Amino acid sequence: MPLVISALKEKKGENRVSLTPDVVSKLNKKKFKVVIEKGAGQGAFYSDEDYTAAGAELGTHLAALKADIVTTVYRPIDSDLERLKKGQTLIGMLNPFSAQELFTKIASAGVNTLSFELLPRTVSRAQNMDANSSQKSIAGYKAVLMAANAYPEYFPMMMTAAGTARPAKVLVIGAAVAGLQAIGTAHRLGAVVSGYDIREDARDQIESLAAKALISSVQVKDENGYARALNDDERKAQQAELEGFIKENDVIITTAQVPGQKPPVVVSKKAVEAAKAGTVFVDLGSSDLGGNVEGSKPETTVTTKNGAIIIGAGDLPSQIAKSASDMYSKNIENTINYIVKDEKLSLDLSDDVLKDLVATSNGEISSAFLRRRYGLSAKEETKKEEVK
Amino acid sequence: MPLVISALKEKKGENRVSLTPDVVSKLNKKKFKVVIEKGAGQGAFYSDEDYTAAGAELGTHLAALKADIVTTVYRPIDSDLERLKKGQTLIGMLNPFSAQELFTKIASAGVNTLSFELLPRTVSRAQNMDANSSQKSIAGYKAVLMAANAYPEYFPMMMTAAGTARPAKVLVIGAAVAGLQAIGTAHRLGAVVSGYDIREDARDQIESLAAKALISSVQVKDENGYARALNDDERKAQQAELEGFIKENDVIITTAQVPGQKPPVVVSKKAVEAAKAGTVFVDLGSSDLGGNVEGSKPETTVTTKNGAIIIGAGDLPSQIAKSASDMYSKNIENTINYIVKDEKLSLDLSDDVLKDLVATSNGEISSAFLRRRYGLSAKEETKKEEVK
Repeated sequence: MPLVISALKEKKGENRVSLTPDVVSKLNKKKFKVVIEKGAGQGAFYSDEDYTAAGAELGTHLAALKADIVTTVYRPIDSDLERLKKGQTLIGMLNPFSAQELFTKIASAGVNTLSFELLPRTVSRAQNMDANSSQKSIAGYKAVLMAANAYPEYFPMMMTAAGTARPAKVLVIGAAVAGLQAIGTAHRLGAVVSGYDIREDARDQIESLAAKALISSVQVKDENGYARALNDDERKAQQAELEGFIKENDVIITTAQVPGQKPPVVVSKKAVEAAKAGTVFVDLGSSDLGGNVEGSKPETTVTTKNGAIIIGAGDLPSQIAKSASDMYSKNIENTINYIVKDEKLSLDLSDDVLKDLVATSNGEISSAFLRRRYGLSAKEETKKEEVK
Repeated sequence: MPLVISALKEKKGENRVSLTPDVVSKLNKKKFKVVIEKGAGQGAFYSDEDYTAAGAELGTHLAALKADIVTTVYRPIDSDLERLKKGQTLIGMLNPFSAQELFTKIASAGVNTLSFELLPRTVSRAQNMDANSSQKSIAGYKAVLMAANAYPEYFPMMMTAAGTARPAKVLVIGAAVAGLQAIGTAHRLGAVVSGYDIREDARDQIESLAAKALISSVQVKDENGYARALNDDERKAQQAELEGFIKENDVIITTAQVPGQKPPVVVSKKAVEAAKAGTVFVDLGSSDLGGNVEGSKPETTVTTKNGAIIIGAGDLPSQIAKSASDMYSKNIENTINYIVKDEKLSLDLSDDVLKDLVATSNGEISSAFLRRRYGLSAKEETKKEEVK
C-alpha cells in the first residue's frame, strides 16, 4: 500500500495551497498516492483539472483528512484536528505557540505534527524546507509593491522634459528574510534604500543589495542568530534612534515579528506625527496583537492627521498566491522526502532538524524548542531522554 | 497691477492640483500674484500652509475663478465656465473634443482657453509644456504597479533554497509615452518584457529599454507621428496577430487611447479566453466609451471564467498625485512663461505651438487642430486667414 498524501482546502480568504500540481506529479513518481480536496488550488489559480492531469485524486474534505500525511498551509480548525487518528501526520504552519492545550491533546491522540515555525534556522540542510523563509520573502516583495502603490510620488528618479523627480527614500527596518527581499525590491524599483537592523551581522547583507546599512547601537540576539526581544529601555533607545532615520525617509517598511507574541513597537507615535505628508508606513508586524507602527490597524490603511499613510499589512503571501504556493509546496515536498525512507514514515528525533520541527509524536509534545517555550520542566526533559 | 494666476480645487475624486507650492514660489518671483483655492492641494499632500509659505493667497472657489489666468487639471463644470469673462484665460486638460457647442460658447464670451490635448507633439520647444506626456508617463508607471500587485506570481526571477521562480513575461501593447514607461518599469521589476507597436519607429525605443520589439505588419501613422485608427480589416489582422503574442505572456498592458473617441479593441474576446489562469490584463484605454480589452470595465477588476484578471484602469495619474501634480504644474509654469511677455498676455496664433494649443481666443475657436476635428469649413479657415 503506498502512503497517501493529501492537501486540504484552506479556510476562506487564504488563497494558497499546500501542494501544487507540479509537486503532485513529483510525489506520484515516487509512488505516493495524492488526494487533493476539491477546489483546494482555486485561489492559487490551479484548477481541479490541473491536479487530475498531474495524477492526483480529487476528494472531499473528510477524505483528505484521512491521508497518512495531511498537508496544509495554516492549522486546520479544531474539529478537523480532532478527526485525525493515531499514526497520521500533519504538516503545515500550525502556529503551536500559545496553544499548549491543543497540542497536548493532539499529541495524546497519537497524531504526529510537523510545524514549520519550529524549523531550526541554523541547520543548512533544512533550508529547502524553510517555509517560514519562503513565505517571508514573498511578504517582503509584496510590501514594497503595496508601498509603491500607496506612495503619492514616483519611486525611481525620473528625468523628463518638465523637470526631474527625485527618487523615493525607503527605510526597511529589520533585515531578516522579509526585510532583505523588501530592500532588494525597492532597489529594483529605483528607490534610494536604507536597511536598519540591530544585528551587526546584517551590515554585509544590506550593503550587498546596494542599500545603506544602519546598524543600531543596541545589539542583541538569541541562540538562532535572530534578534531577541529588547527590554523596555533598549526599546525606547531604539525608537529614539529610529525617529531620526524615519524623518529622513519617504517610505518605511517594518518587519519585526515574534511568532505568537505581541510584535514590538519600533515606530513610535512621535515618529509617525513627525513624518511629512505622503509618507508611507507598511507594517509587516501588524496583527490582532498589535503592530510595529504605533496606530497601525491590521488589513487597514490609516491616514493620519499629518498626512502619513499607515498600511497594516495582512497575510501578504496569500496575495501572491501562485508563487507563494509554488515555494511552499516545494518546502512540503522536501519535508516529505526528509521524513519518508523506503516508503515508510520515519521521525527520528535524534536528528537535529526533526528534534525541533516535529511538534508532536509518540504521544507527547516532542519539539525541543516548543518544550522550552512551554516551559516544560527539566525533569520531564530528562525523563524523556532516559526513555529514549 | 500684476497678472493674477489661480488654481482651482478639482472635482471630488481627482487628487491632482494644477499649481504646486514650488511653482507658486517661482511665479511669485516673476511678479505674478497667485491665488489658490482653499484645499486645492490636499489630495496631492500639499496643505494650505504649504501654499501660503510659498507666497500664495488662499481664496474661495469664486475668487479663484476671477484670476487673469485660471489653471486647472480637468475642465471645470459648465457653470464655472460660464462665470469666466472676456479676457480671462483658462489653461488645463479641457478635453475640447466632442464639445463643440461648449467651446463655441466660451469663445463667444471672449474667454481664452489653452488645452494640453491640442499641443503639437512634433515641436520640440513645446516638450516642457507637454502635460499629456507627463501624465501618460505616470499612467504607464502606475499600470505596472497595478499589474504586479494583481499578478499571483513574482515579477522577477527568484532563486531560492526551495527552487527557482521564473520571471513574469510582460507584453506592453503600444509603445508611446505610457507604453515606454510601462516597459521601463516592468523591466526594473525584473520581468521579461516585450513591446508591441504598429510603428516601425518604435523598435529602437523599445529595444533601448532592454525589451523585445514586436512590430506589427500593419503600419499606419497620422501627421503627428502617432498611430492613426486602423480600419476594420486592419484591426482584425492586428487582433489575430496579437492573439499569438498574448498567449505567450503573463501580463498584458494596453495603452491605445484616441482622445475623445471610442478606444480601439486590441485584445479580442478570443485572446482573453485563451489566456491561462492568473494572466493579468491592465487596460489603460478603459473608459466609459469602451476599452482596449474586450470585457474590461472602467475602474473595475474583472476575473473571467478562465481565471484571467482584467483591470480597467481609471485615472491613474490621480493615484500618484504628488508626482503627477509636480510634473503637471511645471507644464503649466512653462506654458505661462510661453504666453506672458513683459508681464502681459500674448497669444500669438502665428506661433506653431499656440496655433494648435490655443483652443479659443478672439471670440472664436482658434485651434487649427480643433477646427479640423470639428470639420469647420475651409471657407471659414480662409476667412480667418484673411482677417489675420
